[in-house]
Amino acid sequence: MSKKKVGIWLIGAAGGVATTSIVALDALARANARGKTGGKGPDRAGHAASDITTALTSELPPFARLDLPGWGDWVVGGHEIRDISLPDAARSMAGPEGFLPAKYLEPAMASLEEIARRVRPGTIVGAGPTIAALAGPDVPREESAQDAVRRIQADIEQFMADEGLEHVVVVNVASTEPPIDADRLPHRWADVEALLDSPTCPLPASTLYAIAALKAEHADTTASYINFTPSLGSTPAAIGELVHLRQSRHMGCDGKTGETLLKSVLAPMFARRNLDVMSWVGHNIFGNLDGRVLDNPVNKSAKVRSKDHLLSEMLPRPPQTHVSIEYIESMGDWKTAWDHIHFRGLLGVPMTMQFIWQGCDSILAAPLVLDLARFTELARRRGHVGPMPFLASFFKSPYGVSEQAFDRQFAMLERWAEQE
Amino acid sequence: MSKKKVGIWLIGAAGGVATTSIVALDALARANARGKTGGKGPDRAGHAASDITTALTSELPPFARLDLPGWGDWVVGGHEIRDISLPDAARSMAGPEGFLPAKYLEPAMASLEEIARRVRPGTIVGAGPTIAALAGPDVPREESAQDAVRRIQADIEQFMADEGLEHVVVVNVASTEPPIDADRLPHRWADVEALLDSPTCPLPASTLYAIAALKAEHADTTASYINFTPSLGSTPAAIGELVHLRQSRHMGCDGKTGETLLKSVLAPMFARRNLDVMSWVGHNIFGNLDGRVLDNPVNKSAKVRSKDHLLSEMLPRPPQTHVSIEYIESMGDWKTAWDHIHFRGLLGVPMTMQFIWQGCDSILAAPLVLDLARFTELARRRGHVGPMPFLASFFKSPYGVSEQAFDRQFAMLERWAEQE
Amino acid sequence: MSKKKVGIWLIGAAGGVATTSIVALDALARANARGKTGGKGPDRAGHAASDITTALTSELPPFARLDLPGWGDWVVGGHEIRDISLPDAARSMAGPEGFLPAKYLEPAMASLEEIARRVRPGTIVGAGPTIAALAGPDVPREESAQDAVRRIQADIEQFMADEGLEHVVVVNVASTEPPIDADRLPHRWADVEALLDSPTCPLPASTLYAIAALKAEHADTTASYINFTPSLGSTPAAIGELVHLRQSRHMGCDGKTGETLLKSVLAPMFARRNLDVMSWVGHNIFGNLDGRVLDNPVNKSAKVRSKDHLLSEMLPRPPQTHVSIEYIESMGDWKTAWDHIHFRGLLGVPMTMQFIWQGCDSILAAPLVLDLARFTELARRRGHVGPMPFLASFFKSPYGVSEQAFDRQFAMLERWAEQE
Amino acid sequence: MSKKKVGIWLIGAAGGVATTSIVALDALARANARGKTGGKGPDRAGHAASDITTALTSELPPFARLDLPGWGDWVVGGHEIRDISLPDAARSMAGPEGFLPAKYLEPAMASLEEIARRVRPGTIVGAGPTIAALAGPDVPREESAQDAVRRIQADIEQFMADEGLEHVVVVNVASTEPPIDADRLPHRWADVEALLDSPTCPLPASTLYAIAALKAEHADTTASYINFTPSLGSTPAAIGELVHLRQSRHMGCDGKTGETLLKSVLAPMFARRNLDVMSWVGHNIFGNLDGRVLDNPVNKSAKVRSKDHLLSEMLPRPPQTHVSIEYIESMGDWKTAWDHIHFRGLLGVPMTMQFIWQGCDSILAAPLVLDLARFTELARRRGHVGPMPFLASFFKSPYGVSEQAFDRQFAMLERWAEQE
Repeated sequence: MSKKKVGIWLIGAAGGVATTSIVALDALARANARGKTGGKGPDRAGHAASDITTALTSELPPFARLDLPGWGDWVVGGHEIRDISLPDAARSMAGPEGFLPAKYLEPAMASLEEIARRVRPGTIVGAGPTIAALAGPDVPREESAQDAVRRIQADIEQFMADEGLEHVVVVNVASTEPPIDADRLPHRWADVEALLDSPTCPLPASTLYAIAALKAEHADTTASYINFTPSLGSTPAAIGELVHLRQSRHMGCDGKTGETLLKSVLAPMFARRNLDVMSWVGHNIFGNLDGRVLDNPVNKSAKVRSKDHLLSEMLPRPPQTHVSIEYIESMGDWKTAWDHIHFRGLLGVPMTMQFIWQGCDSILAAPLVLDLARFTELARRRGHVGPMPFLASFFKSPYGVSEQAFDRQFAMLERWAEQE
Repeated sequence: MSKKKVGIWLIGAAGGVATTSIVALDALARANARGKTGGKGPDRAGHAASDITTALTSELPPFARLDLPGWGDWVVGGHEIRDISLPDAARSMAGPEGFLPAKYLEPAMASLEEIARRVRPGTIVGAGPTIAALAGPDVPREESAQDAVRRIQADIEQFMADEGLEHVVVVNVASTEPPIDADRLPHRWADVEALLDSPTCPLPASTLYAIAALKAEHADTTASYINFTPSLGSTPAAIGELVHLRQSRHMGCDGKTGETLLKSVLAPMFARRNLDVMSWVGHNIFGNLDGRVLDNPVNKSAKVRSKDHLLSEMLPRPPQTHVSIEYIESMGDWKTAWDHIHFRGLLGVPMTMQFIWQGCDSILAAPLVLDLARFTELARRRGHVGPMPFLASFFKSPYGVSEQAFDRQFAMLERWAEQE
Repeated sequence: MSKKKVGIWLIGAAGGVATTSIVALDALARANARGKTGGKGPDRAGHAASDITTALTSELPPFARLDLPGWGDWVVGGHEIRDISLPDAARSMAGPEGFLPAKYLEPAMASLEEIARRVRPGTIVGAGPTIAALAGPDVPREESAQDAVRRIQADIEQFMADEGLEHVVVVNVASTEPPIDADRLPHRWADVEALLDSPTCPLPASTLYAIAALKAEHADTTASYINFTPSLGSTPAAIGELVHLRQSRHMGCDGKTGETLLKSVLAPMFARRNLDVMSWVGHNIFGNLDGRVLDNPVNKSAKVRSKDHLLSEMLPRPPQTHVSIEYIESMGDWKTAWDHIHFRGLLGVPMTMQFIWQGCDSILAAPLVLDLARFTELARRRGHVGPMPFLASFFKSPYGVSEQAFDRQFAMLERWAEQE
Repeated sequence: MSKKKVGIWLIGAAGGVATTSIVALDALARANARGKTGGKGPDRAGHAASDITTALTSELPPFARLDLPGWGDWVVGGHEIRDISLPDAARSMAGPEGFLPAKYLEPAMASLEEIARRVRPGTIVGAGPTIAALAGPDVPREESAQDAVRRIQADIEQFMADEGLEHVVVVNVASTEPPIDADRLPHRWADVEALLDSPTCPLPASTLYAIAALKAEHADTTASYINFTPSLGSTPAAIGELVHLRQSRHMGCDGKTGETLLKSVLAPMFARRNLDVMSWVGHNIFGNLDGRVLDNPVNKSAKVRSKDHLLSEMLPRPPQTHVSIEYIESMGDWKTAWDHIHFRGLLGVPMTMQFIWQGCDSILAAPLVLDLARFTELARRRGHVGPMPFLASFFKSPYGVSEQAFDRQFAMLERWAEQE
């Protein structure tokens, strides 16, 4: 493993997922320094040590012998549009209504303050009115798409230079934008690039971030891009071409954390038992900032589509489906999903399965962000270019992967790990 | 495929699982005759045809090209200790409180009456007092273990002879016996065989049935044995030796139909996401005959153990577990399970998943019985001898298989299907 | 008790609620004839007899001594817009996917056929496009509001005459219309009456039925009106005036059968324990005709409002609420509601209650229809004129009653019963 | 309202319920001093002020004008058998796995330390082995029943004297003892009193505490007794006689906080709608000290009986019932109950209601303890002697009250409040 540092650049750097990732990374780095996590070896044992690696896929035995970066090797920066400091954001996520445990937050305050100095104003170009309304005074109101890309790119390049980084993994963990149909954009990078200068550039902010990330370079350091949201990001074919032109890598989209994870686990069971799923209804309630943005029906539609499409891909006969997401303020970051699955068994007899998932959104998402950063860095070390299908198990809508069953997606990751 | 017939011999022939299996087999055979099921080919299409094959694993695409017996190739017989005719049993399972759809029951009445003539009195030797109390007047009260084995064996041999069968698959679908520790029995068949003549023979009825099945032969026809229950059956090492001596095959135990199926699907998800399951509580309520027998705490203990042990085998750190099964008369054959899974995510944050499974026990179990019979017959045709690990996905406690994850068990079946 | 007959006139006569009411009334009348129900006395005892009176409030002990009409004293007729015969409708509600038990349907077929001859074509004037699309060929397409009222009135008067009825209770059990704001209509009957002749009459079908019912008379026989739906019906003040002018009585609206019943039982508990309900989310799925009509967002809005308003009236601090109703075809008449109640206890600690209600809509509604008819007839015998607040416990939005707690509403019924 | 102080004496003073009561009382007294709670008037308004009175019945409008003691008028002491200081106990209930909000705990530490000095060693005479095993070194191992009564009585009298109290309300919030049949004890106080000197005295610890409390007096100060647990306490007729002899008052037993509260709210709904409840299953899981004691089947049986008996008293036909309580360590003080209610509606159609209650046991119980103390003090001021049926709504098994419906019990409290 190289001695040089690796960067994580978080878009939405003061949001719940980013903040939780930073607090956890701090705890992991300190535990690592004390020899209390496996880091890259199978030496973990006992309850206390493993506590801090709980929820991290990359800490599982099949990945123990890989050349993954250690937890202390990471430097964090990012973009944020809101006028909130990272330490304040973190404090608001602890406390009586919060979810961040004080015992991890307190020691991480120094890290949060240091990282806060690396957080730069994001862009609201193409982000839609609901997100734009959240922007603080430092965020440019009138910049063009081209200006936004250049500014963001410069921020990332500065990060590379200041920290002497070997590689930066840019992860979009910002709120969900209104949907844009990727197929209606030009399919070639040259044509999309030309749009940046147009005053009516149709690209959403998430795609501008992706372009900036992929174009960023300092000396021989470049960046990879991970789209953890249902926003467009690097989904368009033209951005995929840019990934190849830049010899970079990307993956997305939409982290698979809760209800959809369960769909990708349960639907294959129904299929393998030849049970005929007639309808699958999923209702989600939660109350964090992401939820407030999703309360705008336009933003919500992107999310619902991402949560819904899997079922018809995993079940032989597509059931009637319904997905709702409602912003219920009292829930805070706690997302509760109720799913009702109505199926027929032998002789057509109808039966029912219901599940209730009560999870904390940021706590579920953050470990995936850290795992994705680690695996993406390893992919770079292995010389991988393009989309990373072996990371499909982390996403609701994995780029270029039609397999939606979680177990088969996980086997793809295991097989990739075994290579070399 | 041979033109000769294959037999299914059901122990507990008038119970819910057996009766449902018979009604479904009748519907399948008639649909098959009309060309309305795939039978052995990929020609099924459309909703109406597939209705009747719903819930049958052996009708899935990966198994379409196998030399499986057609649905019309089966002849059914069995043992039953209760004084109830098969047609009456079936009628009691339809109607307002029942679960058997009238549209399948009515046309099956002729089959049920014909099969009823092949049902012979079972044995209560070693079955425990709760089961013995159910016995009708035709069941011998005082026979020795040796007498029981000989009588049962003779019944099966008569079935082979009368019907001109090529092979018989004996499936135990009787109620759960009190548990017996297999390790405390002699490990060699010769020593167990000697016990049969002892007046204090410790073997339970399910093992006597297994011995009789394995010893049965007529001309060159023999039988295989499937233990669909948590009872001892062919679990002891000595019976495994008998299986090999007889060049037969067997598998068990305890069909994986509902709550435990979900455990074998969900626990791997928690493990693969490195989520720390702290406790897993499962409460089951149902009201059929099986439930009444399980209301005896001794009988229940065998079932609970079978439902419970998987978790510690699938999860890296064994959670606290609790399984209850309660006989609630009003539920009839409808089994409702509520499972509460308490787990930690990143930074030790506790979260909860709950599921409610409302399934009809016999409707869930019967297709597995039919699939097992089909796959066992194919195993015989392929010359397989001994336990059948490729059938692990059908069982809560698969003989000789430590893999408990449903997806990996299912992959074992797919790989076996691809052989040859 | 009078020897003369009493009529129930059902608007939506071939729908699930009407059909179930008719089948139950038939079973009750026959049980009554055999002396197997209490009818008007406390003589019922034992399981078999009480089975058939299960779910009937008017059969409870507090109402045993009242001068309620016997179950055999009723004659049924009604309006229906669809081109479906009552016996066919009933048959479609039995069978594998249905809910009507065959043992009650079969003996009721003669009644259903007799009643079918009294079912007249309804009106689609003002019913909205979703409902109008269901209309059969006998329903006039172009009639004016005035024509519709006259035709409907004549049908009810003919029913009075043909059957020699003492009184008719008209009950609206038709599908939910798009909402109309009652306050925007003229407040005086004279002004509303004038609207009937206007080509742009704003009155919905449900109000035209109410007007026709209230105006109907034959000899000294008149009709009362019950609005069992969230449609406008007799809600406007002007119709209330007509009720008084006609010395009649009415009540509504929207039968309280499931989720809302639970709200009116649980919300007072939270209030009396001073628990602070922060949010109350209710998701409903079902698949009957009513659900298909409610799938139109306009029709749905009336229903949602009726299901939602109670909470803020029963809880000291109005919680955030959300109600959804989704049409899920596979559910048929089975309505499943999941409610998630998020509340604070001492020291502000948040806690959660969830409930899942799996009820059959028509089976829950029909007994209320029969009870309402009985109590309304008793109210007439007692000389009651105007709205009937003592029937509040049957409705989601009881006319003229601000008390929403079910227990206090029920106490109002008990007190009324004790009068005289 | 008197200027003198009133005492609460808590048996089980360092348990979850007691500690939470103390922390809440501290917060209430401080809010009261700042004029931030209604105390005895209707002047509360707004969210911030009412937060701290949330969950307190005695703060509801119907009780606003009563001469209830203010929150600052209470002095707390108690008995505890474990070797744990109150401040330490409180700290263990806060923190990541706890439930006490830090913002209320921190300011209460001074109160907790002061009260800790008034906590005296309890007795384990007759408490059963599971509870006895928890006892610290200060608890006498060999004292007789008579010794225990005298010692406890002296402690309470010392409390009266030291604090100059007008009245003491002794509340048993200790863990559940093994059950004792009250009917098998002598029915007269004189006979029970004689047993105290017997070396085989059958009285459990809870009854010894009750006797000591009722006998305690200093100057003209006496004590009342509240049995908040299912233990025997003052249940025996002989203790009721002692209550009258002492001109005191008592009430019990077993605080109605969660699942049973819901039973007493929902069962009347089923009864009033004449729905036929066939079975009612309730499974409870939790992991606090009370749960660990209840893990002993003997102790559990008392609790299960108390949770179960209501249903048959509220429903016309007793359903099959089942109640389980399981100690699941990871749950801590969070009690989750899953109830499955299977009922028939019209025409015998079976339907289901399920609820899931996720409540914090101590947080639910503590406000009832404070309310009971307040109302008991008012009863004393009003000259009430004997059991207090108007407090029935707080108990699972209210002394001398057959009414189990929560709404009617609450109306009893309202009527009592209106008196005078």
